[in-house]
Amino acid sequence: MTVEEEIRALGKKARAAAHALRTLDTRAKNAALRTIAEMLELSRDQIAAANAEDVAAAKAAGLAPSLVDRLTLTDARFKAMVDGVRAVVELPDPVGETLMERDRPSGIHITKVREPLGVVAVVFESRPNVFVDTAALCFKTSNAIILRGGKEALKSNVALAEAVQKGLARWCGTERPPALLDAIQLVRTTDHDGVRALVRMPEYVDVAIPRGGERLIRAMCEAALVPVLKHYKGVCHIYVDEQADLDMALKILDNAKTQRPGTCNAVECLLVNARVANAFMPRVEAWAKAKGVVLHEQDVDWGREFLALELNVGIVMDVDEAIAHINTYGSHHSEAIVTRDEVNAAKFLRLVDSAAVYHNASTRFTDGGEFGMGAEIGISTDKLHARGPMGLEELTTYKYRITGDGCVRS
Amino acid sequence: MTVEEEIRALGKKARAAAHALRTLDTRAKNAALRTIAEMLELSRDQIAAANAEDVAAAKAAGLAPSLVDRLTLTDARFKAMVDGVRAVVELPDPVGETLMERDRPSGIHITKVREPLGVVAVVFESRPNVFVDTAALCFKTSNAIILRGGKEALKSNVALAEAVQKGLARWCGTERPPALLDAIQLVRTTDHDGVRALVRMPEYVDVAIPRGGERLIRAMCEAALVPVLKHYKGVCHIYVDEQADLDMALKILDNAKTQRPGTCNAVECLLVNARVANAFMPRVEAWAKAKGVVLHEQDVDWGREFLALELNVGIVMDVDEAIAHINTYGSHHSEAIVTRDEVNAAKFLRLVDSAAVYHNASTRFTDGGEFGMGAEIGISTDKLHARGPMGLEELTTYKYRITGDGCVRS
Repeated sequence: MTVEEEIRALGKKARAAAHALRTLDTRAKNAALRTIAEMLELSRDQIAAANAEDVAAAKAAGLAPSLVDRLTLTDARFKAMVDGVRAVVELPDPVGETLMERDRPSGIHITKVREPLGVVAVVFESRPNVFVDTAALCFKTSNAIILRGGKEALKSNVALAEAVQKGLARWCGTERPPALLDAIQLVRTTDHDGVRALVRMPEYVDVAIPRGGERLIRAMCEAALVPVLKHYKGVCHIYVDEQADLDMALKILDNAKTQRPGTCNAVECLLVNARVANAFMPRVEAWAKAKGVVLHEQDVDWGREFLALELNVGIVMDVDEAIAHINTYGSHHSEAIVTRDEVNAAKFLRLVDSAAVYHNASTRFTDGGEFGMGAEIGISTDKLHARGPMGLEELTTYKYRITGDGCVRS
Repeated sequence: MTVEEEIRALGKKARAAAHALRTLDTRAKNAALRTIAEMLELSRDQIAAANAEDVAAAKAAGLAPSLVDRLTLTDARFKAMVDGVRAVVELPDPVGETLMERDRPSGIHITKVREPLGVVAVVFESRPNVFVDTAALCFKTSNAIILRGGKEALKSNVALAEAVQKGLARWCGTERPPALLDAIQLVRTTDHDGVRALVRMPEYVDVAIPRGGERLIRAMCEAALVPVLKHYKGVCHIYVDEQADLDMALKILDNAKTQRPGTCNAVECLLVNARVANAFMPRVEAWAKAKGVVLHEQDVDWGREFLALELNVGIVMDVDEAIAHINTYGSHHSEAIVTRDEVNAAKFLRLVDSAAVYHNASTRFTDGGEFGMGAEIGISTDKLHARGPMGLEELTTYKYRITGDGCVRS
């Protein structure tokens, strides 16, 4: 069997599972998720042993410490992962929700209802917990999922997949359709052709969601025949306006840059209005020195994502120049204006073409949890279907159900 | 300048126009659309002359009569086209609508608002009125549009584009930003590489919408790096259940097959429950004979889109077999069940994985106008972003606007 045939076989099973998933109500899905959480706990030793093998191999191969860290399933991360499954149980199920309802003069009655997407393909890199996190979100929304992880985490992912499978099997018993066992599948080949095949079968996959670096995502988009929901990177901006409260500006800058610099919603570029530059820049420089942040003031590289304690700094003449700069060099993720001027704030919020635009708040809030979605499967800088954090609702589509009493079109 | 450079230049101008369009309110956009409608009327003779040249050339080249018909801008079609622009003026503007609003414990206030998509690329074939119809819908939603028509309609499209441009220029005057003049652009090269280039510049194009045959759409999707909203074809089904009112079934079948057989929501396959086949099939055969419909009962070709007075016919054992058949061979467009059995109806509406599912009504209702959207730019069988008829709302995305008073993430 070629890699492509192998992937297509998974796709065919996932499609059948997706049809079977539509027959489940919320209660049944929650029961399955609880059984999966229990089975993960019962399989803890096997999972830890598999993960230790992956970590040892990664160290022996001389992989970067940051990568080894991401790969490691510590006790705390294991617990957070299992707690995450139980948290998804508690979230409301969007499937079946009525989005619109109307009668038409022709006599038909139209109901627009939320539906599962069908089959979701998730391609992730080194964090094994992504397997469980995304599988739980997809199952809760009645979507089948096919997961493909990084080769350095294969043993961990196989151990997780086996635990999840056992949980599904126990819950299914002999009464439920066996197709449900294919609701959560792991791609076991780590051949790169596997990713390509996965995104080229629209008959079996409805959407692909990459969870990884820009290179992986670009390769997927180039090959894809299915829609891909993603953000390539997060090049977030803070613009300090003429009428800014400079204490507030520094507090927001500090939070957005240093609280977790490796995240996509961390700020990468500070734009300062020329009229406050003399007052503000010395404070920025003192802050940078104290916090170990490298400022790029002469050697700016607009549009760069540092993911580290580095920051591009630019001086702009007004809010219009700031908006134009951000729309040109940004990644359409998250941007903030700090100002007391409501007119400039409104202009910035309206004209900056990003998923999340902030007035007097940190860009770090762009997150499913912080937005009140409960959980997120990723963040999108796309404009179609989902923009910004993607939670359970973003894992659904809709359908029109129309009823009549023999209505025909005239 | 290569074709690709030419297309990229249009893209760059469209992106600038999209930013300028964001500054307009509904009143300004409606005024522009009214001026465009007037200018089309004033340019009627030039447009008719250009269209006559296209039609003459098409006839001389021996193009199929159906294609020559589609190309012809009759007086009635011209009037309908201009009336269509004025109808779009009357529709509510979805841009700026608040979709969700909430306070969070962190102190931030989140507003989810409808936003324009940005730049829409429309690729169409022989009907010149598509130029004006789609341009008006995109302008109303503050989207810039790049249109690429078929080469057989080039003279007509150029004449229409010039009239629209004149209208835009008159409305803009000297006070509005000149970037607005690029809000509606026609690709003047008919080189096939132009389509390819158009769908491969995500920095300038946010979504592509093909309006044409399956071959065009498949070629676009294969090349695309931007999202494509489309339906490849419409292979719609009617399932006549055991508990069907057979008079109603025949009435719905007649409407769905013969009222306008060339449309994507016309029925292409009839599935009949075995228990009513003896009673129903003689009536179907008599109807087919009377209406000149060719029935494919032995020589079925599941999944075929006839777009003509032809119909595949199959016998199934029950509603489950009908659902499985439709999910396997259908195009996920529109399907109907005719039955008095509410349980089977509910099952059909829930489990058939199509954009529109009908109970006791004709599939012909899948249409923006019939659904009460006012107008449509196309119909999608995709599941992401838009499913079924796409009206003004489907030409928008959303954005999160967050306000705080110095809120930072802890």
